[in-house]
Amino acid sequence: MAIPIHAVVLAGGAGTRFWPLSREARPKPLLRVAGAGSLLADAVARARRVASPGCVWLVCGREHVEVVRREAGIAKSRTLVEPAMRNTAAAIGLAAARIAAESPQAVMVVLPADHRVPRAGAFAAAVRKAARAASREGALVTLGVRPTRAETGYGYIRLGDAAGASHPGLHRVARFVEKPDATTAERFLASGDHLWNSGMFVWRAGSLLAELAQHAPEIARALAPVAALPAKAGSRAVGDAITRAYRRMPKAPIDTAVLERSANVWCLPVSFPWSDVGTWASLAQELGVNGAASSVIAGTAFTFDAPGNLIAAGDRPIVLLGVRGVAVIDAGDALLIANLERSGDVRNVVASLRKRGRRDLL
Amino acid sequence: MAIPIHAVVLAGGAGTRFWPLSREARPKPLLRVAGAGSLLADAVARARRVASPGCVWLVCGREHVEVVRREAGIAKSRTLVEPAMRNTAAAIGLAAARIAAESPQAVMVVLPADHRVPRAGAFAAAVRKAARAASREGALVTLGVRPTRAETGYGYIRLGDAAGASHPGLHRVARFVEKPDATTAERFLASGDHLWNSGMFVWRAGSLLAELAQHAPEIARALAPVAALPAKAGSRAVGDAITRAYRRMPKAPIDTAVLERSANVWCLPVSFPWSDVGTWASLAQELGVNGAASSVIAGTAFTFDAPGNLIAAGDRPIVLLGVRGVAVIDAGDALLIANLERSGDVRNVVASLRKRGRRDLL
Repeated sequence: MAIPIHAVVLAGGAGTRFWPLSREARPKPLLRVAGAGSLLADAVARARRVASPGCVWLVCGREHVEVVRREAGIAKSRTLVEPAMRNTAAAIGLAAARIAAESPQAVMVVLPADHRVPRAGAFAAAVRKAARAASREGALVTLGVRPTRAETGYGYIRLGDAAGASHPGLHRVARFVEKPDATTAERFLASGDHLWNSGMFVWRAGSLLAELAQHAPEIARALAPVAALPAKAGSRAVGDAITRAYRRMPKAPIDTAVLERSANVWCLPVSFPWSDVGTWASLAQELGVNGAASSVIAGTAFTFDAPGNLIAAGDRPIVLLGVRGVAVIDAGDALLIANLERSGDVRNVVASLRKRGRRDLL
Repeated sequence: MAIPIHAVVLAGGAGTRFWPLSREARPKPLLRVAGAGSLLADAVARARRVASPGCVWLVCGREHVEVVRREAGIAKSRTLVEPAMRNTAAAIGLAAARIAAESPQAVMVVLPADHRVPRAGAFAAAVRKAARAASREGALVTLGVRPTRAETGYGYIRLGDAAGASHPGLHRVARFVEKPDATTAERFLASGDHLWNSGMFVWRAGSLLAELAQHAPEIARALAPVAALPAKAGSRAVGDAITRAYRRMPKAPIDTAVLERSANVWCLPVSFPWSDVGTWASLAQELGVNGAASSVIAGTAFTFDAPGNLIAAGDRPIVLLGVRGVAVIDAGDALLIANLERSGDVRNVVASLRKRGRRDLL
């Protein structure tokens, strides 16, 4: 019998930097950036390409569960609702606990719901390759994206030795590197052995639980009762167990809780286009906005001598004249015009609107 | 019996440079720029301050007569409808013809409906002073605005000799000067004897008709049948006479047709704030937009490190982040974001939308 592959779509983020399209009631994974689907719908489609039938899971926060589950089209029995955000170690560990309850040998693929990976076929091929290594060797396989620019907004993975003849292309990880400064990012780009840490992972559910027990015992202890519930346990029972587990769940990213500590971390370098869609500026870059071109991601826009802009029109056409380097985002009930170089500060705008009592705009 | 003063509000302009607030169906005089009233409503209010009771006239084009007359609140019998735009000599001559039919001695004050004159009291005092000179001396009195900057967008009036002891403050006009280049404008500003030609005039209706007969005989001949109709003639009869008159009416500005040729042109220098509201940029300047401040002329806006902008919000709040020197104009069915330095090109935008068949946006 083939080892089943489960895919876990992480849909936890709120994404205030994508205000006004991302809102309290419409978190970032629901963002439509190009083409027909939302980031979440695209992530679920990628998940279905690699997962065994019926093996796509959704992890999301309680406040967005209805809208996220509807958009994802995932059954209640495959939806794991976090009562509070406890970062990725908890969310991924939770999914591992439930997948292991069904099949400890199962391979699980972790996909953030708010990334953009336009070439789904290349993604699926990489995942299948990583899944073989994860299944046979018990490795924790990270997907490392070959950098196409000296990006300072991502963490990096430094490749170590090749994993060996039976897994061509895979490497051991020498170390994880924090977001670099511009000079360091240039060096990384030139080096050829530094890859973007994509947050996409492939491993056996049982391997991750074992690594959590070793490197993050508090998380493992909190999750133990969830893992102990039988595979056939009902949603209510699982939900109650999660609620209890999260009362004692520490906050930690999977990188620091496990990956930077484990000796079994591998990396599969990949070359397909990938973006974590961090800000309006990174989305603009991703969509090819530059000194000569603007990008219209929704609605109708007319530009006159106005390149370098990212435009999301709503119910009314937007005309740009002689304006460069801005994001113009019409959400219907609010309109943002932001210098793209300042788009990291959009979250401060949201904080300020909250302070001013404009809850209607959050 | 006192000489009656008539006030003529010229509401002919379309104002495509104020797209998208100015539209084919909502010409520029209907623009609301600050406070409660439109430019037109404010102009009518100024007219009522200086005119004898019932002596405010409206001159406007056929295509806008309904909306303009409603906004102005002027009776049909005081509304002169131009079948086609024939520039200011025709429009002013037409009003003079009908006013003279009532009272050739009447003084008429000409007020463009699309200017901004926030200090109505100072305006009225100046008009009364000019009206005395116009009435007693038969002079054509122009109001010349003392420049506050080296403006290249206005024509200038060069002051000549003082008009004499009985009319202190008034001067003869040495000459009219076309829009200057920047260096010349600086010189004009420094000279102290060059004033902005405001397009606001005060003269006896009979004086203007006589000057037209002398300097623009074609216009005078075209208007003669309109002037010959009795004061009590009905709107229908007047309208028919105007239609016939305009079939042979040449196009000419009052400046070149009469003022630059007549020996009886005086100027009253005035110091109250005045603007012809020519572009979004000039409106912004007028409203005090600068490197430290934005101006919100409608709706709700939040600015974050975004000075130097002119904002007209509609039904949705507008947030600006790190953006400078732009006009953001939400008209409900279209939104313009224009570099203020390019706002003279808005008319080209309108022309382009027309070419693209977007009549819904014109």
